[in-house]
Amino acid sequence: MKKVIVFFFLVFIAANVHGQNPIKDSATIKRISNHVLTNAHCYEDLRYLCKQIGNRISGSAQAEKAVYWAKKTLEEAGCDRVYLEEVMVPHWVRGEEEASYIINGRKIPMLVSSLGNAVGTGNNGVEAELLMVNNMDELERLSDAEVKGKIVFFNHRFDQTNVNTFSSYGPCVYYRWAAPSKAAKKGAVAAIVRSVSSADDDKPHTGSMSYDAKYQKIAAIAIGNKTADLLEKEIGRQESVKAYIRTTCQMLPDVKSYNVIGEIKGTEYPKEIIAFGGHLDSWDIGEGAHDDGAGVVEAIDVLRTFKQLNIKPKRTIRAVLWMNEENGLRGAKEYARQTKLKNENHILAIESDAGGATPYGFGLIMSPEKKKKVQSWSQLFYPYNIYNFSQEHGGADVNPLKRDFETPVMGLMPDSHRYFDMHHSANDVFENVHRRELAMGTIAITMMVYLVSFYGL
Amino acid sequence: MKKVIVFFFLVFIAANVHGQNPIKDSATIKRISNHVLTNAHCYEDLRYLCKQIGNRISGSAQAEKAVYWAKKTLEEAGCDRVYLEEVMVPHWVRGEEEASYIINGRKIPMLVSSLGNAVGTGNNGVEAELLMVNNMDELERLSDAEVKGKIVFFNHRFDQTNVNTFSSYGPCVYYRWAAPSKAAKKGAVAAIVRSVSSADDDKPHTGSMSYDAKYQKIAAIAIGNKTADLLEKEIGRQESVKAYIRTTCQMLPDVKSYNVIGEIKGTEYPKEIIAFGGHLDSWDIGEGAHDDGAGVVEAIDVLRTFKQLNIKPKRTIRAVLWMNEENGLRGAKEYARQTKLKNENHILAIESDAGGATPYGFGLIMSPEKKKKVQSWSQLFYPYNIYNFSQEHGGADVNPLKRDFETPVMGLMPDSHRYFDMHHSANDVFENVHRRELAMGTIAITMMVYLVSFYGL
Repeated sequence: MKKVIVFFFLVFIAANVHGQNPIKDSATIKRISNHVLTNAHCYEDLRYLCKQIGNRISGSAQAEKAVYWAKKTLEEAGCDRVYLEEVMVPHWVRGEEEASYIINGRKIPMLVSSLGNAVGTGNNGVEAELLMVNNMDELERLSDAEVKGKIVFFNHRFDQTNVNTFSSYGPCVYYRWAAPSKAAKKGAVAAIVRSVSSADDDKPHTGSMSYDAKYQKIAAIAIGNKTADLLEKEIGRQESVKAYIRTTCQMLPDVKSYNVIGEIKGTEYPKEIIAFGGHLDSWDIGEGAHDDGAGVVEAIDVLRTFKQLNIKPKRTIRAVLWMNEENGLRGAKEYARQTKLKNENHILAIESDAGGATPYGFGLIMSPEKKKKVQSWSQLFYPYNIYNFSQEHGGADVNPLKRDFETPVMGLMPDSHRYFDMHHSANDVFENVHRRELAMGTIAITMMVYLVSFYGL
Repeated sequence: MKKVIVFFFLVFIAANVHGQNPIKDSATIKRISNHVLTNAHCYEDLRYLCKQIGNRISGSAQAEKAVYWAKKTLEEAGCDRVYLEEVMVPHWVRGEEEASYIINGRKIPMLVSSLGNAVGTGNNGVEAELLMVNNMDELERLSDAEVKGKIVFFNHRFDQTNVNTFSSYGPCVYYRWAAPSKAAKKGAVAAIVRSVSSADDDKPHTGSMSYDAKYQKIAAIAIGNKTADLLEKEIGRQESVKAYIRTTCQMLPDVKSYNVIGEIKGTEYPKEIIAFGGHLDSWDIGEGAHDDGAGVVEAIDVLRTFKQLNIKPKRTIRAVLWMNEENGLRGAKEYARQTKLKNENHILAIESDAGGATPYGFGLIMSPEKKKKVQSWSQLFYPYNIYNFSQEHGGADVNPLKRDFETPVMGLMPDSHRYFDMHHSANDVFENVHRRELAMGTIAITMMVYLVSFYGL
């Protein structure tokens, strides 16, 4: 009982500052939580998206299916308005099954995955001596003659010491993104990167790479940690280890696609928009369950929950399901462009693109005053184990809004320990998302959207 | 940088109060975290315990194996002293494979699991009409004549609305523990309980039950949620649905077993003991991975980490691996009895028996002054996403110390969303524990033990 009193005392302090009704808010939030935890709408939506549609890279037939499924699902959720926002997206295709092996006395097959946006090897594949570097400095110290004609293996490891695994992602992504052209600059014929993966398995993790236009475009593949360990061992003890790679991936002409948008009009300030969502596209392996099926189904369920509980937001609340986050960000750029054309006023944009595990906070990128206002609500979040509002974190899809309009942005922060075991790999499937954990994501976003829709930001 | 300064400022406030060295502590804790996250000792120990030894109910050959494995593993971890503490434990055995079906026009097989400590049906089994009650009140309202000769099905559901699923456990356990005798009192011939399970599957979850000596001991089984849903549907629409149950479980005479204890002597206050651990026994289905392999391997790894990092605690730190938590608590009672005989002084006892998922806090049962001291360290825990020190929670094995000696006790609090999908069922296997999440449990306990071993409580 004493705890309850302290809790409401603290909430009342916030109330006095911002004119809230903490007892009503606390009760509404509990109603939201009970509703989402006992119904399993977002989880069942995710099941459909993963199992009936599957992975959905930009430009693919599945991405198109996902667009129409999302539109229909938002309509059925009872939105006031659902619409598609046209955008041309890149259309990268993996092509035929990738073939790779290590030649080291005998041929050892390697499980590989081309990096997204990469070119293929051509039909005959590439066979060459392997050259291993543990980091970019090691490559830089080599002469062109030492690299020329070789396949460079970037053996940069995922740093397991970070409690938040996203801190380990950035340094690894540098290799995935830029390493192929760094190798090509010195005459390499292909690049292999150790996957950006925290898993102790052999799943290759794909992801975007980008070529430096100054150098030859060479094939670029990821390998799983187990194969990377094997290469490391073999290259260390053999005079010469070769590899053969054959990939037929290619970039086709752009394709028409859509952002999918659904909203409930605000009753008092309809022109103040709170946008929230995730990205509808995914990589073309696995099922895009955590990345970012979770963000998609959470956003849909936020609107559905408002409707089903008959909560009428004072400001307009809008689910935005961006297209092409993974290999172009075209949807997010178009959304920001349309915002300007329509002279729309976003008071907040929330992204959920860090997986469907138990959330523990929101990253905030906004003015100190606005941060303070959000943080004043923290006692309302505390019973839901959401306590961290101290980090600066948004998301790739809300970034154009922040950059172009100084829109305050937030990123949902789920537990990250499992995320990079699955991210961009065949491990990212529906079975690896937990019903209750995903529901907590929906609850967290619904709470935040509810508070901002009533009290502004 | 600003955040770092604020952090150290806050830590310094704590330092001023308790004479700590926050910069050194913060660095030591980071060293602990890096060490545990990059090595995978606790995870590999858990693999061995689950895969090489397996489930280990008190009195079983595997429980005995687990005792000697734990002793050896503690010795290899470099403890100053490892010893066994003898204790007589109950020896309940499940017997032959359980057979059950519903008779409803045709025979529908049911997956069942006898409740722990229950008697069997006898060789011929029991066949009788099913009587469903949703709660104890419904049973109480029935006359003896209405219950007599029937199999009572207790259809009490796990409450999905609690964010902390342990809050849903208590009310369900009442049915598992007491329902069979409540049914027997009115003449029932057997009892079926809907499993204490949050999962949307058909795994039965076992667990302790207890007979009221005044009434006939009847067979008592758990069924999974899917079968319970089926029964609910069939009983609702048929005039009479029967069930057949055959179980041959029985309680054999007590068996000699052991608590396993390992310690590092304190350099300055060796008589002040900090105990921490989990229970070595498990149920006889699944592998006892979360319950409580996790608590066992964490405790071993705490000591190993002190040794490997050459941290010399000022007070004695002791891993206690209790025997027979699940169906008797004999180990915990014996440990408390020995504490009295040896006139030992425990300044703290920590239990980890809530699974191996990401921890977010410690429950504290102790005086307000001691709580305040622990809470003053919270800024040291915050970077590890461990923030909640506000709940009252210990554990079954540390409870006798609290009760008999007013020992301050703590319970590690991991994320609980997945726990009751697995608890006491075939789902509780090694594969369902995540390496990094488990490591965070070890880190949390090591941090707490480190701080108390240097600054007392």
